Amino acid sequence: MSRFTLEKGNTNIPTSAYIELENCFRRIATLNEVIGLLHWDMSVMMPSGGAAARTEQLTVLKISVHEMLNDPKVGALLSEAGETLPDEPWKAANLREMRRVWIHANAVERELVEALSRACSACELQWRDARLNSNFKSVLPYLSEVLNLTRQSGVSKAEVLGCSPYEALLDEYEPGAKTDFLDRYFADLSSFLPSLLQTVLEKQGKQKPGVLPAGPFPVEEQRALGAELMQVLGFNFDHGRLDSSLHPFCGGVPDDIRITTRYTDEDFTQSLMGVLHETGHALYESGLPRDWRYQPVGAARGMALHESQSLLIEMQACRSREFLSFAAPLMREAFSGSGLEWDVENLHRLYTKVEPGFIRVDADEVTYQAHVILRYRLERGLIKDDISLVDLPTAWNEGMSELLGICPPNDSLGCLQDIHWYDGAWGYFPTYTMGALAAAQLFASATKDLPNISEAISEGNFSPLIDWMRRNVHSYASLFGTEELIEAATGRPLDTADFKEHLLVRYG
Amino acid sequence: MSRFTLEKGNTNIPTSAYIELENCFRRIATLNEVIGLLHWDMSVMMPSGGAAARTEQLTVLKISVHEMLNDPKVGALLSEAGETLPDEPWKAANLREMRRVWIHANAVERELVEALSRACSACELQWRDARLNSNFKSVLPYLSEVLNLTRQSGVSKAEVLGCSPYEALLDEYEPGAKTDFLDRYFADLSSFLPSLLQTVLEKQGKQKPGVLPAGPFPVEEQRALGAELMQVLGFNFDHGRLDSSLHPFCGGVPDDIRITTRYTDEDFTQSLMGVLHETGHALYESGLPRDWRYQPVGAARGMALHESQSLLIEMQACRSREFLSFAAPLMREAFSGSGLEWDVENLHRLYTKVEPGFIRVDADEVTYQAHVILRYRLERGLIKDDISLVDLPTAWNEGMSELLGICPPNDSLGCLQDIHWYDGAWGYFPTYTMGALAAAQLFASATKDLPNISEAISEGNFSPLIDWMRRNVHSYASLFGTEELIEAATGRPLDTADFKEHLLVRYG
Repeated sequence: MSRFTLEKGNTNIPTSAYIELENCFRRIATLNEVIGLLHWDMSVMMPSGGAAARTEQLTVLKISVHEMLNDPKVGALLSEAGETLPDEPWKAANLREMRRVWIHANAVERELVEALSRACSACELQWRDARLNSNFKSVLPYLSEVLNLTRQSGVSKAEVLGCSPYEALLDEYEPGAKTDFLDRYFADLSSFLPSLLQTVLEKQGKQKPGVLPAGPFPVEEQRALGAELMQVLGFNFDHGRLDSSLHPFCGGVPDDIRITTRYTDEDFTQSLMGVLHETGHALYESGLPRDWRYQPVGAARGMALHESQSLLIEMQACRSREFLSFAAPLMREAFSGSGLEWDVENLHRLYTKVEPGFIRVDADEVTYQAHVILRYRLERGLIKDDISLVDLPTAWNEGMSELLGICPPNDSLGCLQDIHWYDGAWGYFPTYTMGALAAAQLFASATKDLPNISEAISEGNFSPLIDWMRRNVHSYASLFGTEELIEAATGRPLDTADFKEHLLVRYG
Repeated sequence: MSRFTLEKGNTNIPTSAYIELENCFRRIATLNEVIGLLHWDMSVMMPSGGAAARTEQLTVLKISVHEMLNDPKVGALLSEAGETLPDEPWKAANLREMRRVWIHANAVERELVEALSRACSACELQWRDARLNSNFKSVLPYLSEVLNLTRQSGVSKAEVLGCSPYEALLDEYEPGAKTDFLDRYFADLSSFLPSLLQTVLEKQGKQKPGVLPAGPFPVEEQRALGAELMQVLGFNFDHGRLDSSLHPFCGGVPDDIRITTRYTDEDFTQSLMGVLHETGHALYESGLPRDWRYQPVGAARGMALHESQSLLIEMQACRSREFLSFAAPLMREAFSGSGLEWDVENLHRLYTKVEPGFIRVDADEVTYQAHVILRYRLERGLIKDDISLVDLPTAWNEGMSELLGICPPNDSLGCLQDIHWYDGAWGYFPTYTMGALAAAQLFASATKDLPNISEAISEGNFSPLIDWMRRNVHSYASLFGTEELIEAATGRPLDTADFKEHLLVRYG
């Protein structure tokens, strides 16, 4: 498809400056890949005693990247290359993305990069214990350091970007995202979701509840089933792995993608859906254009689109009756199960059960957004210093009571549950909501374009869906902004309509 | 102990130059740690499709290290710091080691570093298939490229170091090693080993042969036993891992040491001894002084001493009757074994069986040196261009016939068996022999100093042995040269006497 047009630049391009920049950014991208691998290893393989050395390694690499970007030569090359735009649209977009990366790097001092790297490592390690022991106080000084440094970073970047410090942080994860848009999405959802939740809870209360098949489910068999379904979706194990970690994620590089999940013996359903979710991330990465690899324009657009691809697979495709009708026999076979609890209807009830809970990552589609709203509110308040960090546990619990009517009995089930803030990711949470909206909007457009998508999924054939995403999302990488891309792919800007419609159809 | 004295330098040290160098080399050491981790991951975790990206990552990191070292500032700082020696001996030695590293880096162009990195990666990958299919021709063009570039590197370094190109390559693995010393060791061994081999074969031919306990031995149980014995030796799993790979090695960093082995269901004895061998390497790394971490003086001295520490554990300590009397019950228990084949005597016969074979890494102590002699001859000839690469298979087979009286039926069992040349490690093999000599000499000195060492080992107590090594070897890191260190620790320069004595006592 070619719904896009880009102005063609002046062709008198001073090639050398642009080519030099490509070389420089190729090297930076490669170092960032290494940083990603070190993070993967840290989460999946590294023994606890390796933490100090790993912190050093990560810090040195981050400083190297920062120094390369802040080399005065890069600024000069960007000016020179910008005088006459490259004649190929992707190169012009690449130059724009280079400048974006460069602006972020130039806004902060090397000392801040170094301090932040060390503070985040130290805080994340302390948080592991704090979460285990539900001891917020023990991690408070570390988190305070992370927040202070993050705030400094946000303030510095805000000056250059001409936005608020919070938006400057958000911009790292979702380029160009603004709080007024987010506020609008959240206001819309806040007026819609509580009454839907009430309706769904009443409706489900009258229905037969889903019954979890009885375990134990040996981890090796869970892993094998996950790997089998990953391959159904198109994951290629010559170019990736599936491992275990405390916090499931998708890391690695486009031709060596590292998915992780966590298993529990008693229940295979959660980890399996987690694997499918991460496979959505993986498919996006593997669908990025090979010709633009290692260039800023060739990177995933942002975390909103990234999350849209995982939620598209998990929420839109794999929690559907169609997919479960295909997967149920495989699940039953994997665990030599028998009985009604292995029927599609029961599994569908399990996978669409709605219930307010404390833990975000375990939340259903209807209550999930409340978890994001809470975090969005709190992190904005914390960055602005409207909320003091020492009051976070109280503010968290009050928010949960207000939004979902439940109050966490301890901080492990409350403000200690997510790694993000402790690891330095501030301004990340709202991308989950943008991702959910985008997933619904993209899925609706795809099924409108290709009405056979759902039927194909019921036969374990994801090609029509994935091909549509390859054409309309993956292959563009960072050529356009998220908003432009969504509008081109779906015919209108990102909004809440398809998401609400999806929830009404599935749950209402 | 303090058998060493070092001249105290002028105390008017221009601290800033030296301190700047320390900072620079700390960063370089950290990047080298990352390179090591990427290699570990490539061998243990990476899917085959990740190879191209990994080559890029390794190349970019090696170029970064090379650029940092070749920054004119480093040369200037070395000159400045060298005008007045640091007043602490370890700092003076550190400066010496910095200069050594710097000389190696400065001798070669960045383009050569890059070309060599790519050529080695490509060749190593091609070699995996070539070895599998015993197809030397398929890897020949790749190996030819590696050899050409390696030769260029050797020639450039030889000019600066004032030695032969082969010695310049050797110097990377074993600083200061010279071929006249090696020739002397090898001549001595060549006049001693063939007749010993004859004697041992005749003697063992008359004895009852060792009987391999009947398997299968599940990999998980082999792994558990290996891990148990690693801990007996003092390995701390908070600071390391044990994994599987095609080619066993010890990688990682001093506080996160990654040991690998390979398992076969039918025989646990080989992989177990492999694990103990690598644990010897690990103990050296973990015994390096923490205060000098990340500095050149704090790194392991060279591959000869490194190999001495693994052979000390494997050959001197763990193939002894004393150790096997401790380990035999643990082995039997690990596999729920019963019968006479689990007796110490039988296991000792298995672990000291001598038999000419094709594969170096499976060779016994008596025939092992013949494998090294062959490789030493061939690689010198290849570097000097006295031997053409296309003739390598023939030259290999002729050498094996001459040295061990057997001729490999195919190249997988011949010149394709080792990763080294294909991976760019030329001048590495002789360090195995130096390591074997050093292991025997150090073990003899240690047991002379502390006669209870063998008795302690028979009780599973390695502390006396390891403590002696910590004091006399590990704690010095690169403070002294290998020869100086050996002489200080054992009272005389490295020679073949203790090694020959060891073989005579155990096998003669």
